[in-house]
Amino acid sequence: MKAIQLHYPPEWAHCYGCGYLNAHGLHLKTYWNPERQLAETRFTPSPHHTAIPGFVYGGLLASLVDCHSTASAAAAKAAAEGVNLEENPLRFVTASLKVDYLRPTPLGPELYLVGRAREVKGKKVVVETELYAEGALTVRGEAVLVQITEGFGQPRSAPGAG
Amino acid sequence: MKAIQLHYPPEWAHCYGCGYLNAHGLHLKTYWNPERQLAETRFTPSPHHTAIPGFVYGGLLASLVDCHSTASAAAAKAAAEGVNLEENPLRFVTASLKVDYLRPTPLGPELYLVGRAREVKGKKVVVETELYAEGALTVRGEAVLVQITEGFGQPRSAPGAG
Repeated sequence: MKAIQLHYPPEWAHCYGCGYLNAHGLHLKTYWNPERQLAETRFTPSPHHTAIPGFVYGGLLASLVDCHSTASAAAAKAAAEGVNLEENPLRFVTASLKVDYLRPTPLGPELYLVGRAREVKGKKVVVETELYAEGALTVRGEAVLVQITEGFGQPRSAPGAG
Repeated sequence: MKAIQLHYPPEWAHCYGCGYLNAHGLHLKTYWNPERQLAETRFTPSPHHTAIPGFVYGGLLASLVDCHSTASAAAAKAAAEGVNLEENPLRFVTASLKVDYLRPTPLGPELYLVGRAREVKGKKVVVETELYAEGALTVRGEAVLVQITEGFGQPRSAPGAG
């Protein structure tokens, strides 16, 4: 199965968190699980992604929730409306992001994020995320995503971006 | 004036966002403004910190709000209780983080964050942040921070972290 982010057209694939064209980025990959109707992402932080030694940096965790949520929104909308992402890629951006750090996330193990769309309404999707380390829930996220359409960002393209 | 983060003791100075001992990190620096009773941070993203080309990655903006808020909490508590950070460094971690992306943040210019403590109560501080690019407010943040005490994180120290 192809990661949701790999459907993004090149002009929207420069994101530091999940763009396949960002040479310095995290290259997050999210997969839709059609049986369970949810999106899944796995990511192993690097040793330098630390907060207090031994634990994952909260800003990285927020970044994972962020990109995981935009991809979850695309997949959930595609599933809800029968859109084939291969033919009609959907791209969402984040309007708001809430992250609750329930307990420190250990640095080292692979992290597992699962995202469920709580609301799919026109260009707006609300995604709830749970992040697990070694089977323990450590972070809860909620994001409001808004679908962008062709031409978004074109007037402000910055030299060197991506 | 010395940045708030430079008061952190070495064992708490490995944070990817603001630790002076993290060789790969962002090295965010926050300064307390005693006249205005608020905290200020300035940061210029790199070209690869992109979302849609031309705009700053939302996960980086969340990271800036995060570390700026922990430092703001330390400074606000120190100011409220007359603590000298040079002698008694205070270190907070994030319990929850809310980021509203009011409009896309242009990639290129220096960003300016200002943080105000809305509540300082025991080990808990609530910080509201505004983030500006070229004078325009683009992001609003709210974070709940909790003060940690000696020994936090010691049992789980991961090899290579920081």
